[in-house]
Amino acid sequence: MLKGHQTWVFESKPVIIASAAVGCAFEAQGAIAEDFDCLHEDIWLGQESFEKAEKKLLEEACETAINKAKMKKEDVQFFISGDLMNQITSSSFAARTLGIPFLGIFGACSSSMEGLALASLLVDSKAAEYVVTGASSHNVAAEKQFRYPTEYGGQKPPTAQWTVTGAGAALVAQNGKGPRVTSATIGRVVDMGISDPFNMGSAMAPAAVDTIEAHFRDLGINPSYYDLIATGDLASVGHKIAGDLLAKHGLEIPREIFTDCGLLIYKKDQPVMAGGSGCACSATVTYGHFLNRMRKGELKRILVVATGALLSPLSYQQKESIPCIAHAVSIEI
Amino acid sequence: MLKGHQTWVFESKPVIIASAAVGCAFEAQGAIAEDFDCLHEDIWLGQESFEKAEKKLLEEACETAINKAKMKKEDVQFFISGDLMNQITSSSFAARTLGIPFLGIFGACSSSMEGLALASLLVDSKAAEYVVTGASSHNVAAEKQFRYPTEYGGQKPPTAQWTVTGAGAALVAQNGKGPRVTSATIGRVVDMGISDPFNMGSAMAPAAVDTIEAHFRDLGINPSYYDLIATGDLASVGHKIAGDLLAKHGLEIPREIFTDCGLLIYKKDQPVMAGGSGCACSATVTYGHFLNRMRKGELKRILVVATGALLSPLSYQQKESIPCIAHAVSIEI
Repeated sequence: MLKGHQTWVFESKPVIIASAAVGCAFEAQGAIAEDFDCLHEDIWLGQESFEKAEKKLLEEACETAINKAKMKKEDVQFFISGDLMNQITSSSFAARTLGIPFLGIFGACSSSMEGLALASLLVDSKAAEYVVTGASSHNVAAEKQFRYPTEYGGQKPPTAQWTVTGAGAALVAQNGKGPRVTSATIGRVVDMGISDPFNMGSAMAPAAVDTIEAHFRDLGINPSYYDLIATGDLASVGHKIAGDLLAKHGLEIPREIFTDCGLLIYKKDQPVMAGGSGCACSATVTYGHFLNRMRKGELKRILVVATGALLSPLSYQQKESIPCIAHAVSIEI
Repeated sequence: MLKGHQTWVFESKPVIIASAAVGCAFEAQGAIAEDFDCLHEDIWLGQESFEKAEKKLLEEACETAINKAKMKKEDVQFFISGDLMNQITSSSFAARTLGIPFLGIFGACSSSMEGLALASLLVDSKAAEYVVTGASSHNVAAEKQFRYPTEYGGQKPPTAQWTVTGAGAALVAQNGKGPRVTSATIGRVVDMGISDPFNMGSAMAPAAVDTIEAHFRDLGINPSYYDLIATGDLASVGHKIAGDLLAKHGLEIPREIFTDCGLLIYKKDQPVMAGGSGCACSATVTYGHFLNRMRKGELKRILVVATGALLSPLSYQQKESIPCIAHAVSIEI
């Protein structure tokens, strides 16, 4: 199971028998709108707070994935989820609604792949037959918590990113049809001293590089093994840094297979500065767009390297730099 | 591996080859001070913030456990940790210091046993040879974040609890000498409508009962299987409720084997209201006191049911009730 220092090889190749992505109006105007199962016009989702709206998005993603597999919540043994809210309340409150035994995780925007890695481990080791894993974020809830309330209208630098309002979920099983999870590389925390919460992509790039290098070293394979290698939400600034760093370290990834979820989700004319971010960025792009492309036969082997900036507003106020992490999961069909 | 609905049985019985507990001056005056590896006089630990002090406590607990096993950080494949701080910064920043591939978790005060359950799963499934798992809390950092800064001097009701300043860690391995982890029951979120953050014990009691019932149902054993069954931090109010509820449901646990970490850690004359709480409560009592008693031969089979209140200050302000969870881990020697 463990290969090298930090990579799990799943011999039974757990299957993603269903997945779902939900978003809101801004995602509906985006570049991959057709890959969302549901797009809400109202960013409140009829709730009285943005935090409660985010919880609804996560519940909907999980329920949609379970429904697509024609299963009931009671058939699923575990729910693994994380989000950006303090004390991951979106996940915990969704777990209350779902009623499925719950493992809360936190890896900021890397939570999507931390969850998929753990879900696959549970299924591969026969600790579960079915696990649903999800991740969510809400643009306005995140801005309020991490930076300024959007009503304040603060200007942002071009390195800033746009938190995706949405949620993605995957239902992982021992048997069935669908893309299969073949391996996962768990990342270390890397911190190169960047402390600007408006420049997360640059802060996270070295963590992505560390995990990508570990993945190929542990498995003894080359980037050409994959049709697509996608970082989570480095966006334009961070993704370029990651590519440059990898090339400098002698691990060049061809441009045509190296992309970033934060660069794919929105259109160029949307005012998202460097690109998308948030737990829902890699979650919706992977569980919607990438898996759909795999099911259509357009992609056969992908590596998703979800990146997370593990800061808090308090650690920033206390002048700490931003510790970052990335978890990589390979999916094949 | 999976038995019943939500219990993992670890066939290889992963070994806790070393463990550590650290605390501060208030814990030094407590009832189990001799079970701590280190007790700091200064709750700042020489740091410039309480949050940074908490991170130091967690690092020290992990490093002490690794040193006790005469190992190096590089020999440990994964670090699994959680805490109460927003975005679990204590854990993430400790992961930066340790440099070990990191899985961040959040289950509030149930994080200790969520971590031990996952660490044991990784070791049992050969996804790791060595995993260090920890949990921490800091009284002043937690009060500031969840209730009022202590300088405010707010009065507390008798149902309130005292957050432990400390950290506990365990090093789990495939082989070696020490207490062994035999099973784990992952809890569901239970919410009985209590919304008072000064009455966490009552809020968490039904979650503890739900997990304890699931544990015995899944494994088909009786409470008499254990020498000791300890809830995490229900303290005097919640622990009585849990006992009453269990008896009502026909699962009476004899008083002499049923205890609570929040009732054991401090002395009766310390001003802790209903008792101790915080991630470090079950972590230090388990990884210090209980494991020491097992190593001395005083206990042979224990079940630790760590309880977590999954609220955030924001969910409380938004008039939400408190979703709670409990994870149970059985340790045998």
